[in-house]
Amino acid sequence: MGSVYIVGAGPGDPELITVKGLRLIERADVILHDRLVSRELLKAAKPGALIIDVGKSPGGVGPSQEEINKMLLSYATSYDIVVRLHGGDPLVFGRGFEECKYLVERGIPCEIVPGVTSGLAAPAKYYIPPVLRGVASSVALVTGREDPSKGTRQVDFKKLASAVDTIIIYMGASVAGDVARELIAGGLSPNTPVAVIKSAFFPDEEFIVTTLGGLSAVPNPSIIVVGEVVKRGVDLWKRRL
Amino acid sequence: MGSVYIVGAGPGDPELITVKGLRLIERADVILHDRLVSRELLKAAKPGALIIDVGKSPGGVGPSQEEINKMLLSYATSYDIVVRLHGGDPLVFGRGFEECKYLVERGIPCEIVPGVTSGLAAPAKYYIPPVLRGVASSVALVTGREDPSKGTRQVDFKKLASAVDTIIIYMGASVAGDVARELIAGGLSPNTPVAVIKSAFFPDEEFIVTTLGGLSAVPNPSIIVVGEVVKRGVDLWKRRL
Repeated sequence: MGSVYIVGAGPGDPELITVKGLRLIERADVILHDRLVSRELLKAAKPGALIIDVGKSPGGVGPSQEEINKMLLSYATSYDIVVRLHGGDPLVFGRGFEECKYLVERGIPCEIVPGVTSGLAAPAKYYIPPVLRGVASSVALVTGREDPSKGTRQVDFKKLASAVDTIIIYMGASVAGDVARELIAGGLSPNTPVAVIKSAFFPDEEFIVTTLGGLSAVPNPSIIVVGEVVKRGVDLWKRRL
Repeated sequence: MGSVYIVGAGPGDPELITVKGLRLIERADVILHDRLVSRELLKAAKPGALIIDVGKSPGGVGPSQEEINKMLLSYATSYDIVVRLHGGDPLVFGRGFEECKYLVERGIPCEIVPGVTSGLAAPAKYYIPPVLRGVASSVALVTGREDPSKGTRQVDFKKLASAVDTIIIYMGASVAGDVARELIAGGLSPNTPVAVIKSAFFPDEEFIVTTLGGLSAVPNPSIIVVGEVVKRGVDLWKRRL
């Protein structure tokens, strides 16, 4: 019986995976990867390794989570080292926990290997710190998605507006305008600085600076950063040029 | 004139640095590192590289931030590659932004190389996810420290209690009891699960599971995780054993 490693590939730049993650890719007998994982990383796999794309295409076609769980279990019974490669970190808006749970409950050894999450790495590329002494002491990482059972947003942005200094939104592209309105209703100024980083570390990366009041259509997939730290970072980024 | 790379070493395990971070250590002419950076990583430096510990000892002795900034500037004028190695991520409760700002304002090229932050990696080791579908849609990373100018805490824990699902506290060891009381005053149940990870990934690591009501003295340095996700992670972790 083999082991499954639930590995974070980091935010897209193949050099931003951890050393441990890369070594596991090199040793893996089987790799199941997300669609947004760098192809460069997969080139590090040993000859003969089984490499399977389990990501969803933009149309939503791809194996279900239950199917991925079953594949992991099945490969772990026949191979020594199975790597499940997630974009970013496997536990930050990934399904790494669910996969690990499924495996552990069936007696398969499972280890989480963390990765740099895009929500922190994408802003860092533009000098935007999530927290900053004297400016921001707290940062929330949140999803923009709605709760399918309730039809309301999973996160109470109105409350969040006054509870933390910086807000970093994953999967918020399609609802950015609504989220901005909720944050303003919660007390944030429409002038609050906002950065949008689309496809961070990929060739089609875009960096947009705006304000909460100006936030509407956002390209997908994007990380949205809200807070005074955006201005501090961008001011410095401009001086660099 | 050289370049300065502000690099996150990750949470302590030398294999959890990024590939890019390790390559920069190997190529660096000068490395200025925090006290809590793994000694294994420093062994990767090339022969003759200048390696300088700029961390504070437990007594607080060590160069000031202003002195570190000046050292970085000075080395960058005489050497090609200067690496400033932070524990965890340089922008998550580190001073990477301040260092980068000092250098960019003086014309020195500076790049931030992110690292896996301890606040996310330490819980992941015990299967604790910061967010989890159906359980937690938001996580706040916060500091437990007080604002020296005001004598009050920098983070409004009473507000935070109902605004996010998971709270991860850095530098909260000495104030854990007070923070717990503020979170309970903000509406969280005293039975809310809490995990404390002391010195994650170092030989003296400790893992403690408690509740908000039971949280008092916490060893230093620790990451404190508050929320239902703690129970989910720990339940699975126990099954693994």
